[in-house]
Amino acid sequence: MIVDIINKKRLGMALSYEELDFFFNGYLKGEVKDYQMSSMLMAICINGMTDEEIFSLTKIFIESGEVLDFSDIPGIKVDKHSTGGVGDKTTLIIAPIVASLGVPVIKMSGRGLGYTGGTIDKLESIGGFRIDLSDQEVHEQVKNIGVVITGQTADLAPMDKAIYALRDVTATVSSIPLIASSIMSKKIASGADKILIDIKVGEGALLKTPEEANKLSELMIKIGNFYHREVRTIISNMNVPLGHNIGNSLEVLEAISILKGEDNSSNLYKLCLELSSEMISMGKNISKAEAQKEVVESIQTLKAYDKFLELVSAQGGDLSSLKVSDHVIEIPSKVSGTIMNIDALSLGKLSVSLGAGRVNKEDNIDYTVGIYLHKLVGEKVEAGDILATLYVKDDFSLTSFDNIFTIQ
Amino acid sequence: MIVDIINKKRLGMALSYEELDFFFNGYLKGEVKDYQMSSMLMAICINGMTDEEIFSLTKIFIESGEVLDFSDIPGIKVDKHSTGGVGDKTTLIIAPIVASLGVPVIKMSGRGLGYTGGTIDKLESIGGFRIDLSDQEVHEQVKNIGVVITGQTADLAPMDKAIYALRDVTATVSSIPLIASSIMSKKIASGADKILIDIKVGEGALLKTPEEANKLSELMIKIGNFYHREVRTIISNMNVPLGHNIGNSLEVLEAISILKGEDNSSNLYKLCLELSSEMISMGKNISKAEAQKEVVESIQTLKAYDKFLELVSAQGGDLSSLKVSDHVIEIPSKVSGTIMNIDALSLGKLSVSLGAGRVNKEDNIDYTVGIYLHKLVGEKVEAGDILATLYVKDDFSLTSFDNIFTIQ
Repeated sequence: MIVDIINKKRLGMALSYEELDFFFNGYLKGEVKDYQMSSMLMAICINGMTDEEIFSLTKIFIESGEVLDFSDIPGIKVDKHSTGGVGDKTTLIIAPIVASLGVPVIKMSGRGLGYTGGTIDKLESIGGFRIDLSDQEVHEQVKNIGVVITGQTADLAPMDKAIYALRDVTATVSSIPLIASSIMSKKIASGADKILIDIKVGEGALLKTPEEANKLSELMIKIGNFYHREVRTIISNMNVPLGHNIGNSLEVLEAISILKGEDNSSNLYKLCLELSSEMISMGKNISKAEAQKEVVESIQTLKAYDKFLELVSAQGGDLSSLKVSDHVIEIPSKVSGTIMNIDALSLGKLSVSLGAGRVNKEDNIDYTVGIYLHKLVGEKVEAGDILATLYVKDDFSLTSFDNIFTIQ
Repeated sequence: MIVDIINKKRLGMALSYEELDFFFNGYLKGEVKDYQMSSMLMAICINGMTDEEIFSLTKIFIESGEVLDFSDIPGIKVDKHSTGGVGDKTTLIIAPIVASLGVPVIKMSGRGLGYTGGTIDKLESIGGFRIDLSDQEVHEQVKNIGVVITGQTADLAPMDKAIYALRDVTATVSSIPLIASSIMSKKIASGADKILIDIKVGEGALLKTPEEANKLSELMIKIGNFYHREVRTIISNMNVPLGHNIGNSLEVLEAISILKGEDNSSNLYKLCLELSSEMISMGKNISKAEAQKEVVESIQTLKAYDKFLELVSAQGGDLSSLKVSDHVIEIPSKVSGTIMNIDALSLGKLSVSLGAGRVNKEDNIDYTVGIYLHKLVGEKVEAGDILATLYVKDDFSLTSFDNIFTIQ
C-alpha cells in the first residue's frame, strides 16, 4: 500500500486526499519510513502536484497540530510571512506601525538557525523582554494594546516541521507545491484572517528566478481562496542585506531608527513601507495608496514608535539595556567606485562567525556583536572610506572580508 | 556535497563518474543515508540516466565486490540470466544441454524469495546435492564435466544488493537504467565471456510492456559492448507459468522429463530450446539454426540427460530421494471450453502458501509440495476434467482456486 502510493506519484499520477492522508499521517506514526518519505518527496519535486493535491496536503499539515482562534479579538487579523533574509528586521518595524493604525497584530515568531536571524532572538537582546507569553496573556495584550510578538507556543503544523527536516538533507526543499503548503498551513493554523507573504527571490534564496516566485505566489493565493483567506504577495530581492545593520541589538537599534523616521531611503525602509501599507490595506479594506498615507503619517507623528515602546514595556523589556560590543574592526575600501553588490549570504555567514547566530540549535548567541554597513548598493566610495564596522567579541580575529562588496 | 549531487539529478542533469562514485560508495560507508539514497533513486527513476552514467554506475557496482576469473577454463563461458518467473526451471534444463555440447557452464544461482522459486532450492530437493562448492571445487568440476550449478559464494556486486533492498520498499524498482546496471554488474563480476538475458514482460513482471523490454534489451547490449561482452536478449511472456509443474521436487521431475525428450510442445520446452540454442550459437560462434540442430540432437540422443546425471552425481545428489507429497487435492473444471489464461502470479502465491516458497528469508521450504497443471493455455477442457493437482501438507486446507484458470 505504501509502495503503491509512492509508485503512483512516481508515474506522475495525482493522489487522492485519502492516499495523501494515509501516507503523511503514516509518517508521523512511524509506519512510513524516512526513506519512503524522501522517495515520495523527490517524486513530488519532479512530477509536481495538482491544485487539488496541494489543498489536501495543506489540510493534512494544518490538522496535524493545533489551530489557533483569535475570533474573540475585534478587527481583521493580518499575518505576514517572509521567506527570510539577512538583516530582515521588518517584523520589529511593521508590527507597531500596523497596530498603531488600529489593525491588530499577533505575531508568533521563531528563533534563527543558519545565516538568517530570528525575530525572537532580536527581541531578546532587549533585557527583560518576555517571548514566552501564555495563550491568555497573548489574548489580553492584543485586546489592550493591539500588538504582540511572542515565541510560537502552540504546536502548529508539526507534520510540516518533521518533513522539513528531511527535505533539507534530501535535496527536496525547492518544490513549489511543498513550499506553498508548508507556509500556508502554518499561517492558517495560527489563526490569521488575511495573509501577506513576502517572497524572496535571488541567488541566496530558495527561489532563484522571478518565474518561480510568481508560480509560488499564484499557488499561495489559490490555497488562500480555498480556505477563504485573502492572500497578497510581495516579491522582493534577497541578494543584498536589508538595511545597514546585521546582528541582534544592532537590528533593534535600526528598527527604532526607522520607527523614529530617521531613515526614509534604505531598501529596508522601502520594504517596510510596502509591507505595512499592504497590511493596512487588507486590515481596513482600503486602497493601498490610502493605506500608505496612513503609514507615513504614523511614522512622522511617532505614533508607530510610541506603539513600539508600548509593546516593549507590555512584554517587560527595558530598552536602556540594549548594548553593542565596544570591540570594533573597521573595514576600509581598497578602491574607489560605486557599490554594485553586497553579498548577503557571505555577510550572513560572517555574522554567525561573529557569534550573532547559531550553527546548531543549542548554540548561544552574543546579542552585542554584528555588522554595520556604512554604505549600501548604489552609493559611491573613495579608497580608504569605511565600508563596514564589525562589532566583535574581544578575542575575535577576522580572516577575510574580501569579495563581500563589489565596487566598480 | 551529498545534497548537491542529489539536487543535480533532481534537475535532470547528468552526474560524473566521480559524483556517482562518491555518492554510491558513500552509501556503503554509511555517509549517505537511506533517505538520501532513496531520494536519489527516485530522481533516477523519473529523470533517467545517460548511457555514460549507466556505464559508470555498472562499474561502481562491479568494483564494490569480487570479480571472478574463469580464464583458466578453455572455451567461451556463456552465462544466462532470467528476470524470473513462476515455474521457471530453465537453468536445470539448459545447463546440461549446453555443457553436453562442449560449451562450459558455470552457474551461480540464488534462493527464491516471494512468488518465484530459486534454482538452488530446486536442486536441494535432490537429497545430498551440494550447493556450497568452494572456488577450487567449482574450477575442478567445470574442467572435469563442463558444468556446475552452485550457490553464490563470492560477494558479487554487494552494493547492488544493498540498494536493491531499498528500491523494493521505495517504489524505485522499475527503473530501466537501474535494472540494467544491476543485472549486468552481477553477470560481469561473475566472470562470463558472453551473456544471454531472458527478459520477462507482462502483468506479473517488472516490465509491463514490450517497449520497456526493448529499451532494457538495447541498454544491456550497450553495457555489454562497453565491457567487450557480447550480450543477446530474448523477450518472453511472464503472464503464464512455465511448463506444468510448480514446486521444488516437481520442477526437478519436469526438468528430467524435458531432458529425456518426453515433452517437446510445452512453452517450457520451447523456451529451453530457444535459450540453449542461443547459448550454443554464442559459445561456438555458429548460426542459431545450426545450434538448434545440435540442441535437439543432444536431447534426442540423451546426451543432455546423461550430462544432467553426471552433474547431480558430481555434486553428491541422489535422484532416488526426490519425493512429492502423497496428500493431493484435485481441482476439477466447473465449465467446458478453451483455456484462455492461467494466472501465474496467483499460482506463485498459492505455491508459497503450500510451503514451496518463502515469504521471509528465514522460512523453511517443503520440497515435496507444489502444483501440477494438467492442462495449459490453448487446450480444451470439459466440465469435470481435472485442471490441477495440488501436492500438499496433510494439514493444508484450500481456501480458493477461483479465477486462476480463465476458460471460455
